[in-house]
Amino acid sequence: MEDDRTISISESVAMNGGNGPYSYAQNSSYQKGIAVAAMVMIKEALPTTLDLNHLSSSSPNPVIRIADFGCSTGLTSVQAIETIIQCLLDLINPIEQPQFRALEFQAIFNDLPTNDFSMLFANLPEKWRYYAMAVPGTFHGRLLPTASLHLAFSSCALHWLSQAPPQTLDKSSCAWNGDRICYASSPAGVVGAYSAQFERDMEAFLSARAEEMVSEGLIFMVMSGEPDLVHESQTTIGSELELLGSCLVDMAKTGILSNAKVESFNLPLYFPSEKELKQVIGRNRFFDIERIQTLSHPKMHAAFSTPDSRSLCLRAAFEGLLLHHFGDELIIDDLFHRYSLKVAKSPFFLKPESHETITFFVVLKRKMYEENMQ
Amino acid sequence: MEDDRTISISESVAMNGGNGPYSYAQNSSYQKGIAVAAMVMIKEALPTTLDLNHLSSSSPNPVIRIADFGCSTGLTSVQAIETIIQCLLDLINPIEQPQFRALEFQAIFNDLPTNDFSMLFANLPEKWRYYAMAVPGTFHGRLLPTASLHLAFSSCALHWLSQAPPQTLDKSSCAWNGDRICYASSPAGVVGAYSAQFERDMEAFLSARAEEMVSEGLIFMVMSGEPDLVHESQTTIGSELELLGSCLVDMAKTGILSNAKVESFNLPLYFPSEKELKQVIGRNRFFDIERIQTLSHPKMHAAFSTPDSRSLCLRAAFEGLLLHHFGDELIIDDLFHRYSLKVAKSPFFLKPESHETITFFVVLKRKMYEENMQ
Repeated sequence: MEDDRTISISESVAMNGGNGPYSYAQNSSYQKGIAVAAMVMIKEALPTTLDLNHLSSSSPNPVIRIADFGCSTGLTSVQAIETIIQCLLDLINPIEQPQFRALEFQAIFNDLPTNDFSMLFANLPEKWRYYAMAVPGTFHGRLLPTASLHLAFSSCALHWLSQAPPQTLDKSSCAWNGDRICYASSPAGVVGAYSAQFERDMEAFLSARAEEMVSEGLIFMVMSGEPDLVHESQTTIGSELELLGSCLVDMAKTGILSNAKVESFNLPLYFPSEKELKQVIGRNRFFDIERIQTLSHPKMHAAFSTPDSRSLCLRAAFEGLLLHHFGDELIIDDLFHRYSLKVAKSPFFLKPESHETITFFVVLKRKMYEENMQ
Repeated sequence: MEDDRTISISESVAMNGGNGPYSYAQNSSYQKGIAVAAMVMIKEALPTTLDLNHLSSSSPNPVIRIADFGCSTGLTSVQAIETIIQCLLDLINPIEQPQFRALEFQAIFNDLPTNDFSMLFANLPEKWRYYAMAVPGTFHGRLLPTASLHLAFSSCALHWLSQAPPQTLDKSSCAWNGDRICYASSPAGVVGAYSAQFERDMEAFLSARAEEMVSEGLIFMVMSGEPDLVHESQTTIGSELELLGSCLVDMAKTGILSNAKVESFNLPLYFPSEKELKQVIGRNRFFDIERIQTLSHPKMHAAFSTPDSRSLCLRAAFEGLLLHHFGDELIIDDLFHRYSLKVAKSPFFLKPESHETITFFVVLKRKMYEENMQ
């Protein structure tokens, strides 16, 4: 092991913890709907894409390790892990495959160090069929030993960037984003900077997983995105983020927040189109795309039917990040009260059918290791 | 995998979390002193007891897994893991042992699910040389896949029993413990019940570790105990617990607590003598005792020089357990205020040199697996 081989943790901020009225757990029914739809896809995709015999080693103590990257407090995460294990058990015939008689499972729950892992542990079933462990750290870097992971899952997490593109904070750059907080309706330079940051982060995610996964290991990715050729501002999520940004601008205008703080805040989020996602994944050397599909699930406006419920959903995801940036000067109740009022009058709330959101279901397979790597 | 193979979590209660005035982190300088002394012992013992070549496998991606059982919020735990890794790196000569060139380390931090793992993660160094993970659950049961663990450590944790012996709550039993909360000064039946519970729990700990560890893996155990032939009531720790029990009895007498609640509370703690510890470990089939020594470290009265500091030390360890049992009727500030007043007048505080505490340092080695197990 090289002496300078170290692993860093990220300073990013996790979803709201606990189980209270502003928690991610209580305000993520949209994400849960996506996870339910994803389970159906995994059950269908896993048997046709997994070569179980290849995963098994000659070890007398076979263990299959399954990781969820971006597990949050775990309600959908536990369900995903259990779905995958049940799929595997259904595939195994202990008589024909005696090497799996002593098979064990290890479930690895990953999220940022600031994630509420205590609640994740409380959400684990009282009796489980796997050894559970939590791994703190950013999934844009290495988290697990080399070639130790067999199956990976990530839901509603990979649209989070490691950071907003630094150029968006540089007034002399064509990517300067002014008082906007996302790239919807921003100049092309900003969109390009976000797109490039997404590409770098996805490349970092895939490179780290490539080292951690065994040959022919599978990644199931569930990601929010935008339809090809539809501009972000026409999607619900683009409109939602723009509206949140406009509330911050209003607060700056009345002197509650400083202009400088608003100008230096950009959300580290990017929603790729299918074409873009295919290009970015296609450029990596380690994974083949087995599938890329659009997930059919309840729309945002079905999950969140009142302005307040939509406000709570955003608050659960962004409160930590907002407070980290603005500090004490931001009254978070004030911000999301303003936001609820604007949502009630917004086109995406009044005419949700004219606004698009889209979720991708992607299955990647780790290419065979070169002889000198295996 | 058998279908009924499930893993349970314990309902026990962990140390006080966080970093506040009542936290375990702020009130465990005695335990930290023990850990510092233990590090010296590990550095000395590891090179002579470990057969590094035996630990290495034929895998092209060797990983050494090191676990701490009972890590709490991690200040001593991180230090222990780093000490062990540095010892290993000092032992390895990459030129003579090319199989270790790509060696990786995985650190496994275990404690009860109610432990403050968020603080543990915050205590991890910003850059580390190992992959860190947390495993929630009781160390009296299985936590890790079969034959996956190379080195284990446990400090100031194995005196915790999985439960107080159930007979101590049975009025018809000779082990009925009345309104006492520990076995110091209790009838022989109570002491025997505690001793038997300790033996069962230690057997459960060793059996679980025997399945998890590789052949010739090492366990470093640091455990509080009592000197041979010294009755528990003469040790500081026995006296401290008795004093805490007497405060609960006082509160019951004034009607603040119910008698029934006090009678049904017994601390799940046992401090074995060296002779007893040797016998219990000796009865297990899986581990050889490589060393059992008495650890030289600062005494309790040096670490906690005021009655309040001793009170805080006990509170950090027992608050969760006490509130879990007594619920809202127990005013915890009142209890530990009473306790501080009694400590100030106690023989163990006024004449600490006449009271003994003792800490064992034990090194166990996993016996070679039978051919049919390996």
